[in-house]
Amino acid sequence: MGGMTFVDIRDRYGITQLVFNQETDAALCERANHLGREWVIQVEGVVAERSNPNKNIPTGAIELLVETLTVLNASEVPPFTIEDETDGGDELRMKYRYLDLRRNAVRKNMELRHRLVMLVRQYLDQQQFLEVETPILIGSTPEGARDFVVPSRMNPGEFYALPQSPQLFKQLLMVAGFDRYFQIAKCFRDEDLRADRQPEFTQIDCEMSFVEQNDVLEIFEGLVKYVFKTIKGLDMTEAFPRMTWAEAMRLYGSDKPDIRFGMLLNELKSCTEEGLFTVFDSSEYIGAICVPAAATYTRKQLDELTEFVKRPQIGAKGMVYVKCEADGSFKSSVDKFYTGQQLASWAEVCQAKPGDLLLILSGETHKTRKALCELRLEMGHRLGLRPKDQFAALWVVDFPMFEWDETVERFFAMHHPFTSPKPEDIALLDVDPGKVRANAYDMVINGVELGGGSIRIFDRKLQAKAFEVMGFTAEKAEAQFGFLMSAFQYGAPPHGGLAFGLDRFVSLLAGLDSIRDCIAFPKNNSGRDVMCDAPSTIDPAQLDELNITLKPIK
Amino acid sequence: MGGMTFVDIRDRYGITQLVFNQETDAALCERANHLGREWVIQVEGVVAERSNPNKNIPTGAIELLVETLTVLNASEVPPFTIEDETDGGDELRMKYRYLDLRRNAVRKNMELRHRLVMLVRQYLDQQQFLEVETPILIGSTPEGARDFVVPSRMNPGEFYALPQSPQLFKQLLMVAGFDRYFQIAKCFRDEDLRADRQPEFTQIDCEMSFVEQNDVLEIFEGLVKYVFKTIKGLDMTEAFPRMTWAEAMRLYGSDKPDIRFGMLLNELKSCTEEGLFTVFDSSEYIGAICVPAAATYTRKQLDELTEFVKRPQIGAKGMVYVKCEADGSFKSSVDKFYTGQQLASWAEVCQAKPGDLLLILSGETHKTRKALCELRLEMGHRLGLRPKDQFAALWVVDFPMFEWDETVERFFAMHHPFTSPKPEDIALLDVDPGKVRANAYDMVINGVELGGGSIRIFDRKLQAKAFEVMGFTAEKAEAQFGFLMSAFQYGAPPHGGLAFGLDRFVSLLAGLDSIRDCIAFPKNNSGRDVMCDAPSTIDPAQLDELNITLKPIK
Repeated sequence: MGGMTFVDIRDRYGITQLVFNQETDAALCERANHLGREWVIQVEGVVAERSNPNKNIPTGAIELLVETLTVLNASEVPPFTIEDETDGGDELRMKYRYLDLRRNAVRKNMELRHRLVMLVRQYLDQQQFLEVETPILIGSTPEGARDFVVPSRMNPGEFYALPQSPQLFKQLLMVAGFDRYFQIAKCFRDEDLRADRQPEFTQIDCEMSFVEQNDVLEIFEGLVKYVFKTIKGLDMTEAFPRMTWAEAMRLYGSDKPDIRFGMLLNELKSCTEEGLFTVFDSSEYIGAICVPAAATYTRKQLDELTEFVKRPQIGAKGMVYVKCEADGSFKSSVDKFYTGQQLASWAEVCQAKPGDLLLILSGETHKTRKALCELRLEMGHRLGLRPKDQFAALWVVDFPMFEWDETVERFFAMHHPFTSPKPEDIALLDVDPGKVRANAYDMVINGVELGGGSIRIFDRKLQAKAFEVMGFTAEKAEAQFGFLMSAFQYGAPPHGGLAFGLDRFVSLLAGLDSIRDCIAFPKNNSGRDVMCDAPSTIDPAQLDELNITLKPIK
Repeated sequence: MGGMTFVDIRDRYGITQLVFNQETDAALCERANHLGREWVIQVEGVVAERSNPNKNIPTGAIELLVETLTVLNASEVPPFTIEDETDGGDELRMKYRYLDLRRNAVRKNMELRHRLVMLVRQYLDQQQFLEVETPILIGSTPEGARDFVVPSRMNPGEFYALPQSPQLFKQLLMVAGFDRYFQIAKCFRDEDLRADRQPEFTQIDCEMSFVEQNDVLEIFEGLVKYVFKTIKGLDMTEAFPRMTWAEAMRLYGSDKPDIRFGMLLNELKSCTEEGLFTVFDSSEYIGAICVPAAATYTRKQLDELTEFVKRPQIGAKGMVYVKCEADGSFKSSVDKFYTGQQLASWAEVCQAKPGDLLLILSGETHKTRKALCELRLEMGHRLGLRPKDQFAALWVVDFPMFEWDETVERFFAMHHPFTSPKPEDIALLDVDPGKVRANAYDMVINGVELGGGSIRIFDRKLQAKAFEVMGFTAEKAEAQFGFLMSAFQYGAPPHGGLAFGLDRFVSLLAGLDSIRDCIAFPKNNSGRDVMCDAPSTIDPAQLDELNITLKPIK
């Protein structure tokens, strides 16, 4: 540009324009012309007002008229462009994560993560919570997901486990009288991975003594409101709705409903006359959502939706639609089975208005509700009812205490084995454990389970009873959780708590699709760090010291 | 006590006296008489001023006249008394750590730890440091201490390692342009244990870009001063002294000198005439400390000190003393070899005054200095010169870059392999690596190495050179640290950092003898958690999934 050379210099805080003037110092300008992308330089000069300010960047009003230039480090041409919209694929960006992290879009997420944990600590500290570090090398507990284990050199044949959560330790801290505990805790699960799962993840882990469910909900609702106010400038003045698990399943087909929009599930079984349509006759459940102003959907669009619900992840066998035409008539894929009047009665149940579209699925209750939930979310997405900058939070409460596992034919704890039943349901433990509701709660925002917790059992006998329902012998319970049961004998206070997924919390605030984007050095779906090439083989001498050998790989 | 029953109720915040009045409510009073130690109760009543206030406790001015009493949980009699001075032995207290943590003395340490990390985060946040979590499941790096490893189920035959520190990741964050990073980071070392070592420990881990050594020292000196000011009310207004490693070794026989007191090491080799005393003649080094006003030490006391230095941990062969008598004469264990005048010349070198005592050790320089250091610390202790409430901090700088390892006959990095040499010593890398000084520094307080760090190499070629000196082939360097070397090619800024041992920091502030007392759930010297009984055996099916087998134990 005539006698000038312009160079953008970038640091963590932004981009500033450097100006080298051919007339003032030709040699310096010549050197500037040979600078390359991503070089690290040091400059001195005079800050001046730009004649053509760049209003898109904070430092766009000024430029630096450079007087001295030192090259601190040169750079090869990077394997992808360091820009918000990069040309680098996922694998390449992960291999060179240290370059990917230079991108504004990624760095912003890390800054947000830092800010969030600072705020969380500040809030909890003010509420008298103590941060206590619990150990990473702990004992293995078979109940729950698969543990990562660590062979002990000093105790041959024995293994530590990495914690899936600090659950037992935080309960012991309550027994220790710590009253209010928190920790930003690393947790580990050796599970197969997907976009929102990593082998290691971080929890905002909390526990309180002398509380009932409402105390916990109020403290942590306060935390979430404080975070949204401070980071997003959002005033969440209303109390978060509290919805029972049963209601969430009935109205949304999900225990983590996205309540940014309506389009609730309606049950049609009672108003679909028997003997007309065999598919409906053989269905335990028939449910419909009413999509506003979508009666104009074409055959092609409806076929697309049918394909959507028939995908194996969703698993519906088919979809029935009813168009509530603007003229008050009805057009449906089951026209030949039902009269207009019958269809009208369905529309009435769904509170459909002329111009709306009913989408109907049928089958086994639980599965069909889940499929309808997916369809509802998809329609919400298509209709733009799920904007990322709008946040709708609620508490889901009264979860079932146990789930029956068909495969091993026993009850498992839905939350975890230390969750207390609702006092009014304790009597059901003996007669109908599947009906027992737990003092457990989840916080859900925009359809994401941000966290959850429960009031815990603090009575040795009740804990023993719970283990019994889950099919533990007294010996097995003692072997696995003896120290907790023993602790309950020495004056354990009533206690309860909650854990938020930090990775999810950041993703939600940043509007990310994958938690990977808010983790500095994530693993890929095979659990590999492709940058460091970990895991890797280790020296046979080390295996020897650890008293283990590798099995030949088949 | 007449018609009254008094009960002390304890929570995290203190002890309050409850009063049950026989006259007001006899039944309630009767129930209070049956409460046991460590029971968990809930009471309601009226707060009243105590007629006999207890000035030793914050709530000693009031009492609660109880109107209702609910027993929330009873308690067995605890296996030891929950008091500052408990009757429980170490093993018992660890087994019931949840009861041990109820003791005021232990809980206070956890509260201090919480407060310290809050302050550290606050300070670093204000200085624009970003807290970034680095992974716990990383690749194994053979250079350094022994790694804990984690078999990977998804990558059979391969292992993750647990980090000994986030070193490589924090350097990569600097390459990523993060400018200022910190993390309160869990670190792991599979080493044999002792009082100040745990298999997992916590570091305040920091790194900065575009800095020189002085920038790092100033920031972290500021942090330490801020902590001492806030927690201890101490104004450390003076700049911390900076002492070279060579000077510290010469004057204190240690790279972590306790400078709360003098009693420096004096070198006597040049003033001990040859041919008089064979032990001195054959010694490379002869050093003395001058113990003030200790010439009155008895034979027995001196014999005791001789035994002290001859212990295997210290390893001196014997000790020579010179009493500088009040009358100006000298009395020494080497009287028969040296004249009074010769002894006087030693006393002069040591700046001894009449009434002082010289203690002299001789032998190989490094070993003898270390032994003298131990003797100096012991004498400082005996003379009450090391009070726990007095704090003397300094920086030790200019560490040697390499140490020669006799066993494997190669140089190792004294700090770590990424430490940069002092620019003026780079030329020595080729000709005399043992003489190269590093841009490395330690902060030492009261003889404890609180932390340390270095300015790092950020140039690929210099890093390759350093690896070469340490006997790495180019292939081995590439295999182990290739991703770091590669990162240096893409515009790495100059950077450096530091890590403080959090456990040590808390111990120092709390005046503890063992870091265990500031860790909620520590391991014993065999790496066991005796409360949870971890590590433990795991299910053979799990070993199978992990593709490993146990070797039969010999």
